[in-house]
Amino acid sequence: MVQMQVNIPATLDKAVADQLKKDEKEMAQKLQREGKWRDLWRVVGQYANVSIFNVSGNDELHNILSALPLYPFMSISVTPLTQHPSAIAQIG
Amino acid sequence: MVQMQVNIPATLDKAVADQLKKDEKEMAQKLQREGKWRDLWRVVGQYANVSIFNVSGNDELHNILSALPLYPFMSISVTPLTQHPSAIAQIG
Amino acid sequence: MVQMQVNIPATLDKAVADQLKKDEKEMAQKLQREGKWRDLWRVVGQYANVSIFNVSGNDELHNILSALPLYPFMSISVTPLTQHPSAIAQIG
Amino acid sequence: MVQMQVNIPATLDKAVADQLKKDEKEMAQKLQREGKWRDLWRVVGQYANVSIFNVSGNDELHNILSALPLYPFMSISVTPLTQHPSAIAQIG
Amino acid sequence: MVQMQVNIPATLDKAVADQLKKDEKEMAQKLQREGKWRDLWRVVGQYANVSIFNVSGNDELHNILSALPLYPFMSISVTPLTQHPSAIAQIG
Amino acid sequence: MVQMQVNIPATLDKAVADQLKKDEKEMAQKLQREGKWRDLWRVVGQYANVSIFNVSGNDELHNILSALPLYPFMSISVTPLTQHPSAIAQIG
Amino acid sequence: MVQMQVNIPATLDKAVADQLKKDEKEMAQKLQREGKWRDLWRVVGQYANVSIFNVSGNDELHNILSALPLYPFMSISVTPLTQHPSAIAQIG
Amino acid sequence: MVQMQVNIPATLDKAVADQLKKDEKEMAQKLQREGKWRDLWRVVGQYANVSIFNVSGNDELHNILSALPLYPFMSISVTPLTQHPSAIAQIG
Amino acid sequence: MVQMQVNIPATLDKAVADQLKKDEKEMAQKLQREGKWRDLWRVVGQYANVSIFNVSGNDELHNILSALPLYPFMSISVTPLTQHPSAIAQIG
Amino acid sequence: MVQMQVNIPATLDKAVADQLKKDEKEMAQKLQREGKWRDLWRVVGQYANVSIFNVSGNDELHNILSALPLYPFMSISVTPLTQHPSAIAQIG
Repeated sequence: MVQMQVNIPATLDKAVADQLKKDEKEMAQKLQREGKWRDLWRVVGQYANVSIFNVSGNDELHNILSALPLYPFMSISVTPLTQHPSAIAQIG
Repeated sequence: MVQMQVNIPATLDKAVADQLKKDEKEMAQKLQREGKWRDLWRVVGQYANVSIFNVSGNDELHNILSALPLYPFMSISVTPLTQHPSAIAQIG
Repeated sequence: MVQMQVNIPATLDKAVADQLKKDEKEMAQKLQREGKWRDLWRVVGQYANVSIFNVSGNDELHNILSALPLYPFMSISVTPLTQHPSAIAQIG
Repeated sequence: MVQMQVNIPATLDKAVADQLKKDEKEMAQKLQREGKWRDLWRVVGQYANVSIFNVSGNDELHNILSALPLYPFMSISVTPLTQHPSAIAQIG
Repeated sequence: MVQMQVNIPATLDKAVADQLKKDEKEMAQKLQREGKWRDLWRVVGQYANVSIFNVSGNDELHNILSALPLYPFMSISVTPLTQHPSAIAQIG
Repeated sequence: MVQMQVNIPATLDKAVADQLKKDEKEMAQKLQREGKWRDLWRVVGQYANVSIFNVSGNDELHNILSALPLYPFMSISVTPLTQHPSAIAQIG
Repeated sequence: MVQMQVNIPATLDKAVADQLKKDEKEMAQKLQREGKWRDLWRVVGQYANVSIFNVSGNDELHNILSALPLYPFMSISVTPLTQHPSAIAQIG
Repeated sequence: MVQMQVNIPATLDKAVADQLKKDEKEMAQKLQREGKWRDLWRVVGQYANVSIFNVSGNDELHNILSALPLYPFMSISVTPLTQHPSAIAQIG
Repeated sequence: MVQMQVNIPATLDKAVADQLKKDEKEMAQKLQREGKWRDLWRVVGQYANVSIFNVSGNDELHNILSALPLYPFMSISVTPLTQHPSAIAQIG
Repeated sequence: MVQMQVNIPATLDKAVADQLKKDEKEMAQKLQREGKWRDLWRVVGQYANVSIFNVSGNDELHNILSALPLYPFMSISVTPLTQHPSAIAQIG
C-alpha cells in the first residue's frame, strides 16, 4: 500500500501546477490501464490518496513513484503487503 | 480503508484463541464472498491487516467490525476513502 | 466528526483572504440551513473547528469539504461516527 | 468535546464488567434526558465515543465524568469548544 | 491552563512586530490587573508561556485569547482544570 | 510546572491503595501549607494534576516529588518556568 | 530494511524462553548462510536489531519473518529499500 | 540538560549569519570559561548540541539562553537534572 | 549521551529488586571510578538518568549497558555526541 | 545506521542544486570506494537513504556527514549499531 500526500507550494506558478496535475492524471490512468496501479482512492477531506500497486518489486515501485509528475511535491509512505491467509482472492 | 492490528494476550487459553482465529477466518471469508469485505491484505512482518470494505455507510461498517470474533483483541483505525478523480474504475 | 484547522499563509493578499472568509461563512451557513452541516463549534484558542455532518456517505462528504472556499488552506481529519447503543437520540 | 476510550482489563470478572456497563448505560441515558450529555456517538471500529456536554463549567464536567461507572477504565481527553462565528445555532 | 507558543515570521516588518509585542504586553498586564489572567510564566528557553485564566467559561476564554495582538502568530493549547480534592485553596 | 499522571495498577490491594491516597493527600496539604506546593489543580476527566512548586532548585523539587506516597505510580514531567517580562507579579 | 524489537514477557517460563532464543539464533544463522538474511546488527543498548534481507519479494519476506521462533514477541517494521543511484554496488 | 537545535533560514543574509555564528561562539566560550556552561557537545549529523549548565536556577538559565546570538533561530528543550544517588561526583 | 528509563514490574519480588538495585549501584560506581561512566544525573521526577560515557566505540558501550543488573528493565536510547567546535574542553 | 532525508528548498537556484547533487554523488562514491560508506540504499518513494558507515568513531562519522555537499539540506538521524551475537559476519 502506498499513501501519497500532495503539497503544492502556493508559490508555484498556477499554469505550471495545472499542467503537472494534468500530466499526473494521464500517467496515473496509463498505469491503471497497464495493471500496475491496481487501486486508487481519494482520502476524504485531504489532497491525498491510498493506492495499491501490482509490481515486480521495490525497484519497479520506486521507478514508478519517482517518475510521477507531482513526485517532487509528494510525501509518500509505503507499507509492504502480502497474501493474507484468510483472503479468498490470490494476489498477482 | 480499515487497518486492524491483532493483539491476543498471552494469558488467553490456547484452545480458546485457536477457536477464535478459526471463527474469524470463517467470518472473514463469508464477508468476502458476500462482497462486503472487498480486499484483505497481510501487513508484512505484523499480525495486522489492511482491508477495503464495500458497505452502505458507517453503521454497517461498525456492525461488521464489532461482530468479528477477534474484535475485542483488535486495535482498529478507519480512513474514509472515496472515488479519486483520476481513477478509471468506479467505486461501488 | 470532521476537524478542520485553517492556516492562511501570511503571503496571501488580505483582500483575497477576506473574500474567501466571507464566502466560507456563507457556504457554511447555507449547508447548515440545508441540514448537511449539523453542528459547527470553534475550538477555544485555535483557528479551528469541530463539526458534525449529516450526509449520505463518503462521496457527499468529500464533495462538500473540497468545495469549501478555504479548503486549500485547511488541514482536515475525519473520524467516522455511528449510532451509540446508549444514545437516546437516533442519527439521521 | 469529550473523547472517551474504554479499556476494560481482561482480568476483570465478567459479571462485574457487565454490571458496570449496565450502570454506565443507565447513567449516560439519565444525563442525556437531563440535557447535560447533549450528544453521544460511537467511533466506528473502536470501544470509544465522541460526546458533547452542555454544562456550566469545568467543575460540573469533571464531576459528571468522574462519577461514570466505567471512569476508572477510561482514557478521556477534553477539547474546549465555544460558539463559532459562522454557526447559525446558539450554544446553551 | 493555557500554553501559548509565539512564532513571529522573519518576514514581518520589525516595527510592526515591535508594536504588536508592546500592545500584547499592555493587554496582558491589563488582564492581569482585572484578575482575568491569574498567572503568567515564561517557559525557560522558549518564546512561550504557561498561563492560568480565571474566567466564566469557554466563551470568555476564547474572546480573550483571540483578541490578543499576537494571537495570529500563536499556537495555543488549552487544558481544562478544576478544583483538586487535595487543594487547600478554593478556585474562583 | 509539574504534571503528574497517576496510574494505580488494578492488582494493588484496595486497602493499600486507599492508605496511599490518604497519605498522599496529607503530604500534599502539608506542602501547600508550607508554601512549597504553590498551586494544585485537577485535570478535567483525568486522574492527573497540574502543579506549581516554589522551591530552591532541582534538588529540592526532586526530593519532594520522589517522597510522595503515590510517586511509584506516577508519570511525571517537569517544565521549568521563570518570571515572564509581562507578568505584574514577581515569582518567589 | 527490517527493524525488530524483542519483548519477551517476564511471565514466560525461563526454560521456554532460553529454548526459543537458541532456536532463533540457529534459524538466523541458517538464513544468513543461505544469503537470505544479508546483514544483522544489534542496536546499541536495546534488545533490537537492524537487518537487511535479500529476498524475492514481500511474500518471501513475510514467510521468513513469521517463521522466526521469537516472532510472537517481536514488534517489526519494514522499510522498503532499492538501488541508490549513487551506490557503486548493485543490489541482488 | 539543554538541547538546542539551530535552524537558520536560507533567506538570512550570509554575512549576518556568519557574524551571528562568530558572536555565538565567543559567548559560548566566555560562558564555559566562567563555569556556567559546564559541557557542550555536538550531536553527530545535526546542527544541534547537548549542553549541561551550572546555574543558580531557572531565571539565570533563561537569561543565559535568551541572550545567545542564535537564540531566535534555536529550538530549545530543557530537562531538569539533579544529583543521582549512585553518582560519585557531587553537582555544583 | 545515554538516556535510561527504569521500569521494574510490580510483580518482581521485592528482595530480588532490592538486590538488583544494590548491584546496579555498585557497578555504576565502579564504572565511574574507571572513568568509563563519565557523568550520571537523575532526571527530576523520574526513575531515569542522563549519562555520558567515555568509551572506545559502540561495541564497548553496548557491552557495558547490557551488563548492567537492571538492563532487562531499562528502556535505553543512545544519542551519539562528538567534539563541538565551540567547546573549550577536548573530549577523551 | 544513518538515515538521511534530503529537502532542497524550491527557492534554491536549479543550477546550484544540480551542481550540489553532482558533488554529493562524487563524494558518496569516493567514500564508498574508500570503504567508509559501506552501504547506501534508496528508501522507496522518498528522497532519502539508509546507510551503513564503517568508521573509527563518532568524530569521524560527524566529519564525513557534515562535509557532504547536501548536508545543509539534510535531516539526519544516527542509530548506533554493534556486532549482533547471532551474526556470522564480523563487523570491521
